[in-house]
Amino acid sequence: MNSDEVIKRIGNLHATDLLPQNVKNWEETRMFLQKIVEILLEYIREENDRSSKILEFHHPAEMLQILDLSIPDKPMTLSELLNCCREVLKLGVKTGHPRFFNQISCGLDLVSMAGEWLTATANTNMFTYEIAPVFILMEQEIMRKMIELIGWSPDEGDGIFTPGGAIANLYAMNAARHHCFPRAKPLGMTSVPTLCAFTSEDSHYSIKGAAAVCGIGADNCFAIRSDAIGRMIPEALEQEIIRCKKDGLHPFFVCATAGNTVYGAFDPLPQIADICVRHGLWFHVDAAWGGGLLLSPEYRHKLAGVERANSVTWNPHKLMGALLQCSACFIRQEGLLFQTNQMSADYLFQQDKPYDVSYDTGDKAMQCGRHNDIFKLWLMWRSKGMEGYRRQINRLMELAEYFTNRIKTTEGYEMVVAKPEFLNICFWYVPESLRLLDPKEKMARLDKVAPKIKAKMMERGTTMVGYQPDKQRPNFFRMIISNQAITHNDLDFLIEEIINLGKNL
Amino acid sequence: MNSDEVIKRIGNLHATDLLPQNVKNWEETRMFLQKIVEILLEYIREENDRSSKILEFHHPAEMLQILDLSIPDKPMTLSELLNCCREVLKLGVKTGHPRFFNQISCGLDLVSMAGEWLTATANTNMFTYEIAPVFILMEQEIMRKMIELIGWSPDEGDGIFTPGGAIANLYAMNAARHHCFPRAKPLGMTSVPTLCAFTSEDSHYSIKGAAAVCGIGADNCFAIRSDAIGRMIPEALEQEIIRCKKDGLHPFFVCATAGNTVYGAFDPLPQIADICVRHGLWFHVDAAWGGGLLLSPEYRHKLAGVERANSVTWNPHKLMGALLQCSACFIRQEGLLFQTNQMSADYLFQQDKPYDVSYDTGDKAMQCGRHNDIFKLWLMWRSKGMEGYRRQINRLMELAEYFTNRIKTTEGYEMVVAKPEFLNICFWYVPESLRLLDPKEKMARLDKVAPKIKAKMMERGTTMVGYQPDKQRPNFFRMIISNQAITHNDLDFLIEEIINLGKNL
Repeated sequence: MNSDEVIKRIGNLHATDLLPQNVKNWEETRMFLQKIVEILLEYIREENDRSSKILEFHHPAEMLQILDLSIPDKPMTLSELLNCCREVLKLGVKTGHPRFFNQISCGLDLVSMAGEWLTATANTNMFTYEIAPVFILMEQEIMRKMIELIGWSPDEGDGIFTPGGAIANLYAMNAARHHCFPRAKPLGMTSVPTLCAFTSEDSHYSIKGAAAVCGIGADNCFAIRSDAIGRMIPEALEQEIIRCKKDGLHPFFVCATAGNTVYGAFDPLPQIADICVRHGLWFHVDAAWGGGLLLSPEYRHKLAGVERANSVTWNPHKLMGALLQCSACFIRQEGLLFQTNQMSADYLFQQDKPYDVSYDTGDKAMQCGRHNDIFKLWLMWRSKGMEGYRRQINRLMELAEYFTNRIKTTEGYEMVVAKPEFLNICFWYVPESLRLLDPKEKMARLDKVAPKIKAKMMERGTTMVGYQPDKQRPNFFRMIISNQAITHNDLDFLIEEIINLGKNL
Repeated sequence: MNSDEVIKRIGNLHATDLLPQNVKNWEETRMFLQKIVEILLEYIREENDRSSKILEFHHPAEMLQILDLSIPDKPMTLSELLNCCREVLKLGVKTGHPRFFNQISCGLDLVSMAGEWLTATANTNMFTYEIAPVFILMEQEIMRKMIELIGWSPDEGDGIFTPGGAIANLYAMNAARHHCFPRAKPLGMTSVPTLCAFTSEDSHYSIKGAAAVCGIGADNCFAIRSDAIGRMIPEALEQEIIRCKKDGLHPFFVCATAGNTVYGAFDPLPQIADICVRHGLWFHVDAAWGGGLLLSPEYRHKLAGVERANSVTWNPHKLMGALLQCSACFIRQEGLLFQTNQMSADYLFQQDKPYDVSYDTGDKAMQCGRHNDIFKLWLMWRSKGMEGYRRQINRLMELAEYFTNRIKTTEGYEMVVAKPEFLNICFWYVPESLRLLDPKEKMARLDKVAPKIKAKMMERGTTMVGYQPDKQRPNFFRMIISNQAITHNDLDFLIEEIINLGKNL
């Protein structure tokens, strides 16, 4: 049956004519889902065609005129639903395009995607072994593997997959508090001293966010100075801890970042661990972005010291390329996650079930329903094996070096951090008209360049890269090389494209 | 090309032979994804075949022997990956089976599933308009619709889709605290009075959980007595508020539940709203489960008073049948979510972008990366229209009434709550050997019946329904009727099956 015939047969049907409501119409159901898949396959093919555009930019008001998003009174037909899918994909941003270099540009790993299709079809909930037996065991197996890579001993460590790194950091801070002051769980913060936490000024904002949510207070999460390349200065950390103690605060938590958001810098974990030991503080490593390097024997040394952490955040949806969301929080002390989050819900986590209920994870989680984020990671990891990941990650590091060299040797470009440690390459493009200005004026005018180039870039739709200022420097581009599809050619393309977009500024 | 030929052609390939790494092999990529889809379609067909088993039960230790879940050193072939998918589905639990009546048994809506397949393929992040323009606008449109159904005026209300109802409740409590004591965000709980919150003893445990995480303390979240059918007693609430004030605590938050977990009871919202007004407290409605009734003109009266709430949790992944996760938190006061969660991350939410950045939602969220949970809901809602939902929900209510009547009139069955308000039907099956015992002894022995029947049920694999005790009653079954696939026949089947499984106990 060709495409027109299929549409003729099912186009005017409605969802209620299909399974599960109408079990007789299996053939029509199959046809509808196959049509959906055709649309998705066409999208994937196009996304991987470098000559295709990443986006067709429209301002929100414009977009609202092109698209009707309203909910109708009457059900739409299958044919209308298929058109909705086509239209939404057409007007979206192809984040898996090999020339999409914006934040979280990990590409679209098709095995991970296939895994997510299966996850959707299996549509279960990770709270009990009862309804997710295989996925619960899979989560355990993968967490064991990740804990081994972190370097904890086989009898240590526990963890949970969480909806994103910010929530993983919140889990870690909450567990740390429970470890130090278990009475805070029943009695609240007014029952304990005024706690304070420490994180680098270049760390992710979710650490301060967690302090705010936990009732510790964002201002009691102190931002520690970092050096010229974005790494926390251990001496500054220790001074701040001592100062806080003098001021009557109670330090309890230090977050070190392994691969920070803007520069990709790695805080010096061993020194920070030493300080935590000296002062009896919880040592958390936010390796949301950098954790993936543990898969490379050649680069895992950048995380040396992570094995001393009390807790680790690691997002496989970043460097490892799993589909969003796939994020984990690991806690070294067995049982602590359970003690921290357990609320004794008899109606869900009964103790008289016919199987070993220690496999039920619900009581370890802050959430009740919990999405299955494990299958897409497991399937993808199996598709690569340890060797494949090693190659993939080493190759990305090589591409970052190549790109850095190209930036350094191409006229008009300047590095923000001369020697990037990771896959973030921060740089300026300086249009000719600015090159001979005195440094102060040049910097002032440079601030407007990246936004202008980005705006033109989005109009043209051929590539995308993020920008931001930092505390001392004007807007600069931040390149992220984490999509396995990227080639040298794609990197050359970006360099040329920015020159083209920026030359007349 | 037939199936064997396809496997012959692609079976020995690896993921690196496919897109995005190897763009020449589009045909092989397509074949692999089509094979995955074949497996999923076969699963869906089987899941909807009532003669198929819901699960093949294995204890965890057994399961670990059947399944090898380890990560290999070498990449697996495509053929091996396809086998992994088959095996995982075979050993899982078919939560979309029309006779799966466990918790969160909303079935598998195939349009919502198709939506999730597309979401996976588009793999973007909800933090900015820049990379999710269509989905951000879609979220706004759907939230507007849901706010309208809640009954707030068009210029009121804001919201965010969150990873599950527990996190939605946490958002609400955190926003309420920020509203009452904005200084808690920077300075923490030691800067404010000892706060306390109130929720019914039959509410979801995530309310106490949120109080623990927020540093308010689980014990400062007081459990208010509920009546015989599980509804909070307003007088008991007011007494407790007054007592807390006398004890020097500072009441700030009341959670009323619309459709509670075990009984499906609706707390009396208008009376609770009055009490909140009288005492100046934040009025939160946890309508995670019951919210879907707002779509039925015939039954929305059960939520009368919800329009007076300051915040509402509503999970479309429950009654509305969207795939897990799909959950929203609504806050009546415009701007409050932003003020509560905003952490000023310049590197992500720059103000000098080429479009109206008020569309960027990242600063309203506790999370940074945020999964796209909107598309599957939007597409499904369009497939039903307002009329379709009305029919679907009314039909479920009718089925619940039918089931209740069957339980009441079938020998050996007893209702726990005589007149259920919603889609939860709590009941006992009393084996013949217990029927003539004196009530006390009967109750004592009844506690063991449901677990025994459930264990046999899982062995047999033909149906599934949850059970639990409550504070005064022994283990009872809790039937949830929320899968649109359910027919009268399926309900009759459950009643017969329990009799069969339990008759010799």
